[in-house]
Amino acid sequence: MADQFPELKPAARILLGPGPSNVHPRVMKAMASPVVGHLDPDFVKVMEDIKRMLRIVFRTENEITFPVSGTGSAGMETVMANLIEDGDEVVTGVHGVFGTRLAESAGRLGARVHKVEADWGRVIEPAQIEAALKAAKNPKLVAIVHAETSTGIHQPIEEISELAHRYGAMFAIDAVTSLGCVPVEIDQWKIDACYSCTQKGIGAPPGLSPVTFGPRAMESIRKRKTKCRSWYFDVALIEQYWGPDRLYHHTAPITMNYALYEALRIVIEEGLETRWRRHRANAAAFQAGARGMGLELAAQEGYRLPQLSTIAVPAGIDEMKVRAALLRLFNIEIAGGLGPLKGKIWRVGLMGEGSRRENVMLILNALEEILGSMGFEIARGRALSAADRAYIAQGLGVGEPPSGD
Amino acid sequence: MADQFPELKPAARILLGPGPSNVHPRVMKAMASPVVGHLDPDFVKVMEDIKRMLRIVFRTENEITFPVSGTGSAGMETVMANLIEDGDEVVTGVHGVFGTRLAESAGRLGARVHKVEADWGRVIEPAQIEAALKAAKNPKLVAIVHAETSTGIHQPIEEISELAHRYGAMFAIDAVTSLGCVPVEIDQWKIDACYSCTQKGIGAPPGLSPVTFGPRAMESIRKRKTKCRSWYFDVALIEQYWGPDRLYHHTAPITMNYALYEALRIVIEEGLETRWRRHRANAAAFQAGARGMGLELAAQEGYRLPQLSTIAVPAGIDEMKVRAALLRLFNIEIAGGLGPLKGKIWRVGLMGEGSRRENVMLILNALEEILGSMGFEIARGRALSAADRAYIAQGLGVGEPPSGD
Repeated sequence: MADQFPELKPAARILLGPGPSNVHPRVMKAMASPVVGHLDPDFVKVMEDIKRMLRIVFRTENEITFPVSGTGSAGMETVMANLIEDGDEVVTGVHGVFGTRLAESAGRLGARVHKVEADWGRVIEPAQIEAALKAAKNPKLVAIVHAETSTGIHQPIEEISELAHRYGAMFAIDAVTSLGCVPVEIDQWKIDACYSCTQKGIGAPPGLSPVTFGPRAMESIRKRKTKCRSWYFDVALIEQYWGPDRLYHHTAPITMNYALYEALRIVIEEGLETRWRRHRANAAAFQAGARGMGLELAAQEGYRLPQLSTIAVPAGIDEMKVRAALLRLFNIEIAGGLGPLKGKIWRVGLMGEGSRRENVMLILNALEEILGSMGFEIARGRALSAADRAYIAQGLGVGEPPSGD
Repeated sequence: MADQFPELKPAARILLGPGPSNVHPRVMKAMASPVVGHLDPDFVKVMEDIKRMLRIVFRTENEITFPVSGTGSAGMETVMANLIEDGDEVVTGVHGVFGTRLAESAGRLGARVHKVEADWGRVIEPAQIEAALKAAKNPKLVAIVHAETSTGIHQPIEEISELAHRYGAMFAIDAVTSLGCVPVEIDQWKIDACYSCTQKGIGAPPGLSPVTFGPRAMESIRKRKTKCRSWYFDVALIEQYWGPDRLYHHTAPITMNYALYEALRIVIEEGLETRWRRHRANAAAFQAGARGMGLELAAQEGYRLPQLSTIAVPAGIDEMKVRAALLRLFNIEIAGGLGPLKGKIWRVGLMGEGSRRENVMLILNALEEILGSMGFEIARGRALSAADRAYIAQGLGVGEPPSGD
């Protein structure tokens, strides 16, 4: 029976989709450290340092900052299940898969959901949120996706936060695709709750969801009239394990926490500002290069994520064939569109460890090669020089364009 | 800032608590395989093989068999959240921490819970379950813990399963501490839903929760009047990702699935029956040795788990000091009691990779050394010979007692 199941030998891919992104070898090495118990003094030190590092990365003083033992969507559910009770009014932004999911989760947890919609690929305007807040009787929470992974939109947050608070509501954001790539300023932007993931801007494998809850969110949780519907995601219980009490709640995923620990160390070594700048520079180069070869970017101008570019599939091109060729010929993963954008866009991630100029060069050339072979008329001769010019413009300290191509 | 966070260097412990247990180096190596995307053809193969191997280990033909992306308690919540709707009547066995948790989870999800209790350290009698089933108007589900990690009790299952079905209810079990250690016969025992974990009998790090749902459970899920409260744990959605549709639901923890893959391969290479026999033999040796030195076992005789022995703390001994000494002097983790058993018992796990005769020898000698130094009167000279005799009696193929001690 045993010989039916071969040795595990997954390909070593270049991950340029919406996540997971490539993981630094230091993270893989740390992850393979010996498993200890979830209350071992050595693990307790790891937990404390992870909380401190997450506070640095979330730019917050929030005491209640820890990784949920599940992937990004588990963090979403943690925020929603703890802040919502039956009948609460929740205003959610919906302009992609992840906003849809947020609204769906809130509804399942008993909220009366006021959806504020925008076309997929455009931002939600603060005025729309204000209209929903006015229409609601007693809005408890406004929740919105900061980096919409399905569309490549970088949603402005600060004005919406101010509106939420002006109308007496808490404010929560989905930072699954933003944390570690672009500024996420929990305290400065007065965000009451936020969730993210490990496998994108942070650079660890998928498996944990860092969350942070501010004082106002925690007060709301402590004043709940009913228990959190979810036992597994109940922050009031989890904080007794992640906090000084060290009461057993569930067995933390030890090795995933090792991975997160090392990934956070790398983020902090690089420095957040440097990391954000790197993401911007490589995205500018990639987006300039893509436009240079005649492709169009799909997300609203001025609101494009640097870590995830969405490209309109040119007329007459079968987008799945392009992705299959990228994988087969160059070992590169990018993603297609979801829902209404299926078949219409590609999603190209340059995130975390993957935001590197060699990846920019590679994906531009690989796309040019494949699209050219499929009859797409490449605006030849412009692609690489546009990318090179973008590097220089971004002041990466490259005196001359990369040579050799 | 970065130098505040040192290189990760957890101790290499001998894990003889209730889990996590030690992990085979092959599993650690597999876990460090390159991260690929959650829809990568190489990962899809891994998913398919994990499902097939889980079916072998669960002894089931159930199509819906997969690892939930969270730890054991996430599996509990998956079973409860999918099978329960508001107002459903649920009969739960409560004879330890994990039964208490089951009842608590069911209540939070809207069930009317009929608790069937027994003293912690004793089994629940089928007659008690039948009385609860009779008292309930329309019981939908009976749920019970198979291996109560907090007490060391091995709960008999078959008769309770039959009762549940006779009264028209589904039957679910918590196999978190049983799978891979003692028989778990999903199909033969007519279990409709079951959850387990990766870090005990299976021998991977913590982070996933294998679950299986039978046809009757899936029919009940498909007929729900209301949506599952949990979006993250909604089996109707998750099966679209783990099944042939490959619809994105959440990003699977890739490296954890690698670890589970390799751990399951090792289980299947050893063979389930051989593995169960190994657990029984080492537990018999350990329990004989512990009794031999004058310690008392805490769980009801005849229903003691082989993978987790509970020992009554002798009068006058500070149990925490013993555990601290085990950790400091011999690098061994065992656990204390929880809830009403706090300070009263130790929990010694010989599970998965940790169920080895060298561990039996080591923990018996270490306990003897430490307890002796604390004034406990060791029944000297009997401990090791009892253990040795037990080995031989169990027919492990050891012609002579291990030499050298």
